[in-house]
Amino acid sequence: MGRKVTLKDIADRVGVSTATVSYVLNGKEQYISQEIKERIFAAVKEMGYYTNMNAKSLVSRRSRLIGIVVPQTEGRETQLFANNFYSEILSNVEYIARNNGYQIIISGMDLNDNYLRIAHERGLDGIIAIGIYQNEFFDQLEKTDIPMVIIDSYCRSGKYLNIRIDDEEGSYTAAKHLIDKGHRNIGFLCGHIQENGVMQKRYIGYRRALAEAGIELDERFVFEGTVGYHSGLELSERIAKEQPQLTGVVCSADILAIGLMKGLAQQNIRVPEDISVIGFDDLEICQYLSPGLTTIRQQIASKGQIAMEKLLQAIDRHLNDPEEEEKFEDVVLPVELIERDSVREVKNGSGVTAPGR
Amino acid sequence: MGRKVTLKDIADRVGVSTATVSYVLNGKEQYISQEIKERIFAAVKEMGYYTNMNAKSLVSRRSRLIGIVVPQTEGRETQLFANNFYSEILSNVEYIARNNGYQIIISGMDLNDNYLRIAHERGLDGIIAIGIYQNEFFDQLEKTDIPMVIIDSYCRSGKYLNIRIDDEEGSYTAAKHLIDKGHRNIGFLCGHIQENGVMQKRYIGYRRALAEAGIELDERFVFEGTVGYHSGLELSERIAKEQPQLTGVVCSADILAIGLMKGLAQQNIRVPEDISVIGFDDLEICQYLSPGLTTIRQQIASKGQIAMEKLLQAIDRHLNDPEEEEKFEDVVLPVELIERDSVREVKNGSGVTAPGR
Repeated sequence: MGRKVTLKDIADRVGVSTATVSYVLNGKEQYISQEIKERIFAAVKEMGYYTNMNAKSLVSRRSRLIGIVVPQTEGRETQLFANNFYSEILSNVEYIARNNGYQIIISGMDLNDNYLRIAHERGLDGIIAIGIYQNEFFDQLEKTDIPMVIIDSYCRSGKYLNIRIDDEEGSYTAAKHLIDKGHRNIGFLCGHIQENGVMQKRYIGYRRALAEAGIELDERFVFEGTVGYHSGLELSERIAKEQPQLTGVVCSADILAIGLMKGLAQQNIRVPEDISVIGFDDLEICQYLSPGLTTIRQQIASKGQIAMEKLLQAIDRHLNDPEEEEKFEDVVLPVELIERDSVREVKNGSGVTAPGR
Repeated sequence: MGRKVTLKDIADRVGVSTATVSYVLNGKEQYISQEIKERIFAAVKEMGYYTNMNAKSLVSRRSRLIGIVVPQTEGRETQLFANNFYSEILSNVEYIARNNGYQIIISGMDLNDNYLRIAHERGLDGIIAIGIYQNEFFDQLEKTDIPMVIIDSYCRSGKYLNIRIDDEEGSYTAAKHLIDKGHRNIGFLCGHIQENGVMQKRYIGYRRALAEAGIELDERFVFEGTVGYHSGLELSERIAKEQPQLTGVVCSADILAIGLMKGLAQQNIRVPEDISVIGFDDLEICQYLSPGLTTIRQQIASKGQIAMEKLLQAIDRHLNDPEEEEKFEDVVLPVELIERDSVREVKNGSGVTAPGR
C-alpha cells in the first residue's frame, strides 16, 4: 500500500503550504478561503490522511484511551475475560466508550505487574478496575491521579467512585428464600473468604438470615472453595457424603451452583426434589440449565454502563480542574431474587425423603 | 497526587542537565559516569517518572498496541464480547500480548464505522480481526498495510494469515456420528447461511455425510435461525410440531444446541431418550449441562494463541522490511468429536417411540 500519506502530500496536491493544511485540519483556519478548505478536506479524504492520535495526545493531553484492569486473584492465568461476568461488563463498557469516541485497553494484571507504569506510558484518560482488594495493588493504583472508577470492591478510599451491589443483602435474600420455603438445614458454598472481600459480605448475609430465623449456625455446613465450576463439582461430593441432612444450599456465585448441580446429577441426587440450590449473579447461562437456576440477580450490564458513564464525567471534571479532589460515596445497585426451578418447598424442614441418601 | 514528574524534575534532583537525564534514559549515555547514571535511575524510580509511550511511538514508529476487531454481524449491539466464543479468544490474545510487552485495544465495529481510521490514528502495530465476511468491511481493511491476522474467515485475499477450522469436516463428523448411531432422520439447525460463510461450510458438511450414507436431503429438516440461545429455543417448538420424525439434530453452534435442549425439556421431550442432539464448538458450558452436550470441539483457545504468535512474527517482519508482500496459506486447525450424554443409539432409524410425540 506504499508509504503513509503526510501533511506535505496533501499540501502538494492542493498547492498550498503544509502550515495551511495544518491550520485547516486543526480548526484554526479563519483567514483561509472556503474553496481552499474544501479542497484540503477533499484531498484528505481521497488520499487517506489520518491524524496521529499519539502525536495529538501530546498536545491535547488526552489520549481517548480507557484502561480496564482485572487483577488475577484466583489463579486464572489466561482465562480472565472468559469469565462471563467480566466479559459482560467489558461489552457494555466498550459499547459506551465507542459511542463517545474512546477506545478500550484491557489488561489482566498479576500482583507484581506495574499497572501504573502502563497507565502513565499510555497516557490513559481513565481507568476502570474490577474486583480489587485492599492490598499492594490498590495502594499502587491510589498513587495516580488518573480518574478511576472501581467495580465490586470494598476498599476504603473515598478517592474513587465505587460501583457495587449489596452483597450482604443478596445472600441474606437467598438464605431467607430457602427458609421461607421451609428449609432449616441450609448449606453455604463460597469462594475464599477474605477480609472486606465480596465473599465475606455474602457470608455475613447468610448468617444474618439464619440468626433472624432462630437457626443456629453449623460451621460444618459452610464449604469454602474457589469461585469456579470445578470447585462446585468437588464440593457436591463432600456435601452428599458429609452432610446428607442438608435440604438446601446457598451458593455465593452461580458458577459454584452450576458445578454443584452437575455434580449432584452425576450422583443421581435430584435438584430440586432431593436438594434445593440457589445461586448468586444471574449469569446468562442460569436460564440454559434444566432445571433453571433460581438465583440472586445483580445488574451486571448496569455495572459496566454506569462505570463508564461516571468515568466520562470524572474525566471531564479532571480536565477542567486537575487539582480538585472529590469525595465519593459508593453506588450500590439493588439485587433481586429470580425464581426458576431449582428450589422447592419442604414440609419437614430437617428431613430428607429421597431414596439412597 | 500533584503534577506529573518531568525530565527536569529528575535533572534538578540529581543536579545535572535535562539532556544528561535524557541521554541516560535513552541508553545513549556512554560518556556519563556510572555514579550519575545510578543516581538518575534511583531518582526515576523514587519520583515515579514514566516514559510517554505516545511520544516514544512517534520516534520508534512502534506503538506496542494490538487491535482486536469483531464486526457486528448478527445485530448484537452491546453483547459482543459477552459471547463466550469471543471472550475465550480474547483472553488468550491478551495473555500472550501482555507477556510480550503489548497491550490490546478492543473494538466492536458496525459496518459503517471506520476501523481503519482508528487503526491509523492509534498507530496500531497489528490487527486481529475475527469472523469477517467478504464485504465492504473487508475491502476497507485490505487497504492498510498494518500486519493483520484474521480468524474464522473465508475471505479470499492471500494478503493476511487466516486461522480457522475445517468447518465442513466438523459438521460432516457430527452428522456421521448420528448416522453411525443408527439415525436416518437428522435435522440441521444453523445461523444465517451466507455465501462463503462459516454456516454455509457447515451446511455442506452435513449434506456430504447424508449423501455418503445414501440418505436423501429433506429441505424441511433444515432450520435456519440466528446463532443464539433464543433462536434454538424457538426452533425447538417448530421441530417438535412440524418434524416429529426427527431422531437426531446436528446443531451448527453449541449455543443453538443449548437453546434447543432447553426448549425440548420445557416440552417434556427428553434428550437423548426421545431425540439426540449434537453441537459444534465445545464451549466451556457444554459440560455444565445435564445431560452433557456431545459436540465437535474446535480449539478456541489455540485460535487466539496462534493468531497472536503469528501476528508478533508478522510485525517483526514488517518492521524489518515494510515493502515485502507475503502470501499466506490458511492455518486450518483440526476438529474433534467430544462424546458426552446427548446422543444415543437408535435401533429403528426412522421411528420414535417416546410417548406424546
